[in-house]
Amino acid sequence: MDATRKRYPDAPEPWIDLSTGINPVPFPIPELPAEIWSRLPTRSEEDALLAAAAARYRVPDSGTIAAASGTQALIQLLPRLCPKSHVEILGPTYEEHEACWTRQGHHVSVVKGLDPSDRVDVVIVVNPNNPTGRVIPVSVLRTIAAALASKNGLLIVDEAFIDVLPETASIAADPPPATIVLRSFGKTYGLAGLRLGFAIAEVALATRIRAELGPWAVSGPALRIGKAALSDPHWLSETITRLGSDQQRLDAVLEAAGFTVLGGTPLFRLARHFEATKLADRLGRHGIHVRSFPREPQWLRFGLPADRLAWDRLSAALLGE
Amino acid sequence: MDATRKRYPDAPEPWIDLSTGINPVPFPIPELPAEIWSRLPTRSEEDALLAAAAARYRVPDSGTIAAASGTQALIQLLPRLCPKSHVEILGPTYEEHEACWTRQGHHVSVVKGLDPSDRVDVVIVVNPNNPTGRVIPVSVLRTIAAALASKNGLLIVDEAFIDVLPETASIAADPPPATIVLRSFGKTYGLAGLRLGFAIAEVALATRIRAELGPWAVSGPALRIGKAALSDPHWLSETITRLGSDQQRLDAVLEAAGFTVLGGTPLFRLARHFEATKLADRLGRHGIHVRSFPREPQWLRFGLPADRLAWDRLSAALLGE
Repeated sequence: MDATRKRYPDAPEPWIDLSTGINPVPFPIPELPAEIWSRLPTRSEEDALLAAAAARYRVPDSGTIAAASGTQALIQLLPRLCPKSHVEILGPTYEEHEACWTRQGHHVSVVKGLDPSDRVDVVIVVNPNNPTGRVIPVSVLRTIAAALASKNGLLIVDEAFIDVLPETASIAADPPPATIVLRSFGKTYGLAGLRLGFAIAEVALATRIRAELGPWAVSGPALRIGKAALSDPHWLSETITRLGSDQQRLDAVLEAAGFTVLGGTPLFRLARHFEATKLADRLGRHGIHVRSFPREPQWLRFGLPADRLAWDRLSAALLGE
Repeated sequence: MDATRKRYPDAPEPWIDLSTGINPVPFPIPELPAEIWSRLPTRSEEDALLAAAAARYRVPDSGTIAAASGTQALIQLLPRLCPKSHVEILGPTYEEHEACWTRQGHHVSVVKGLDPSDRVDVVIVVNPNNPTGRVIPVSVLRTIAAALASKNGLLIVDEAFIDVLPETASIAADPPPATIVLRSFGKTYGLAGLRLGFAIAEVALATRIRAELGPWAVSGPALRIGKAALSDPHWLSETITRLGSDQQRLDAVLEAAGFTVLGGTPLFRLARHFEATKLADRLGRHGIHVRSFPREPQWLRFGLPADRLAWDRLSAALLGE
C-alpha cells in the first residue's frame, strides 16, 4: 500500500485499500481498563480467550488451541517444528507459506492438485483458498491427514477465510492426528492491527506450539478484545449476512466493468479481465489499491469497500470516465 | 499471580502485584485512531517506530533494530538461529533464557562468573542482572564479544532493565559483531500488556531476525504507542527521577522490616531476610504478591508500589501487626 501510494502521488485522498481480505466493518472495540495495557497478560485472561475460541470454533477441549499474535506468527513458527521435509503447498495461494518453509531450508513445491507422492512429509492447504476461493472437502483432507500421520508427516490447513462459510467446511472442530488448523481472527472481525490468530491441533502438538510461542505471546488488548468478539455470535451472524450481500454487490460492479468473477470468499473476490493491468493502473490513479498477481497478469483481487463513498469511488473508477 | 491469589482466598482486594519489575506509573496511552486496530500495520508505521527506537537507544542506523511483540518473543527465537551450541548464562538470572535454549536442544550451563572456556559458543548476560542488579561493564562485554566473534559464536546482552541506568552502561549504541542486545519496552514505560521489545545487532543479523519474525510482528497499537513513548525524553527523565526516589523509599521500608537490600535496579529490589518465607506468607495474607526464589529461600524481590495506598499496605504488612 505504501508503495502504491508513492506510485500515484496525485491520486485523491484518502486512499481506499481493497488489496486485503479484511472485513471493513470491524467488531467495535470495547472499553479497555488501564491495567490491560500496563500489566503482563495473566494466565486466566489467556484461558478466557482460549475458552471463547474453543466455543467459537466448536472445539471440545481448549487444550487443543494455541493463541498467537497473528496467524503469520504461526506460519513463521511451523517450519521450525519439523525436520527437513518435502513440503507440498496447494497453489497458487498465500505466498507466506512457501516463503517461510523455504527460508527454513525445507524442499518446497507448489502443486496444482492434491495427490502427494510417498516422499512428501508436509502438505499445506489454504481452505478456502486465497485468492481462488477453492474449497477442499473435509473428507479429502482427512484422507490426506491419515496418509501423512502414518509416516510422521504433517497436514496444515490454513482456514484464514473460513468464518463466512458453513461450519461443515471446517476441520477445526475435530482435527485428525498430525494436523494443524490455523484460524485467523483479524480478517472476519476486521481487526487486523490487533494481531491475533490460533492454531488448533491434538493436545500434544498444541502444547508444543504453546511452548514455542512462550508466555505472554498475545497482548493484553488482544486477549480482551478477542474474547469479547469471539463470544458474540449475534455480531458474527449479522456480519456474515452483510458480507454475503456486499459480495453480490461487488460481483455486480465487477461484471458491469467487464470482469469475469473467478471466485473468492465473501471477504474478497478474484476477477479476470484481459486489461487487468490497465484497470489496476486506472484504480491507482483514482486512489484505490487492489491486489495484482505478477504470475497471473489478468487477475485482480478486490476486498470489500467500507462505506457508500468507497462503493461510489470504486464504481466511478471502474465504470466512469 | 493467579496461583498466589488462589492460595490466599481471604486476602484483601485488590491484590497488589509487586512480583514484577514493571514501572507502576505507565506512559499515558494516547488517543488511538480506529484504523490502528482495523487495518494491518504498515511498513511506514514500523519504520517510524524503529526510527524512534534508534533515537532513544542512540543507535545510528535503524536497520540494526528489529521490533518484536515483546522481548520474550525474541528470547524464544534466538535459540533457533544457532546450530547446537554450548551456551553459558551468567546466573542466577531471568530463567527464560535457560528454558528456551534448553528446549531447543542446546547444551546450557548457568555459571557464576564470566570466563567462558574455548568450547562455549554462546554467552548470555542480563545487564543489569535480574534479580541481583549486578552490572557487567561494557568493556568486559566487548572482550567477550570479540572472543566469541572469532569463532562464529554469539553474545546476547539482555538490557531489559537498563533504561534507568546511565547511558554508558549500555552496549546497544554500538554493539560489536556477533552480539545481540535486547531492549524491553514494557518495563520502564509501564506497558507490559502492550507487548513490545527490540533486538539490536549488526545489520545482517538484525535483518535475519526481522525475517524470522515476519511481517506484522508488532500490533498497530504497539507501533503507535511505542513510537509516542520512545519519542518523549521529558517523560522518561521525570520517570527516572521518580523511580530513583521510590527505590530509596522502598529500601528504607525493607530495611526497617529487617531486610538486607542486596541490590536490584530502581524498578525492583532484591532483599534478604532469614525469615523470608514467613514474610512472603504474611504479605500474601495481606494481598501483596512478591517474587520468591526456590533456590534462594532467604531472597525476596519487590517491585515498586503504585500509589499511596499500596505503599501504606506494604508498610503495614511488613511492619505492622
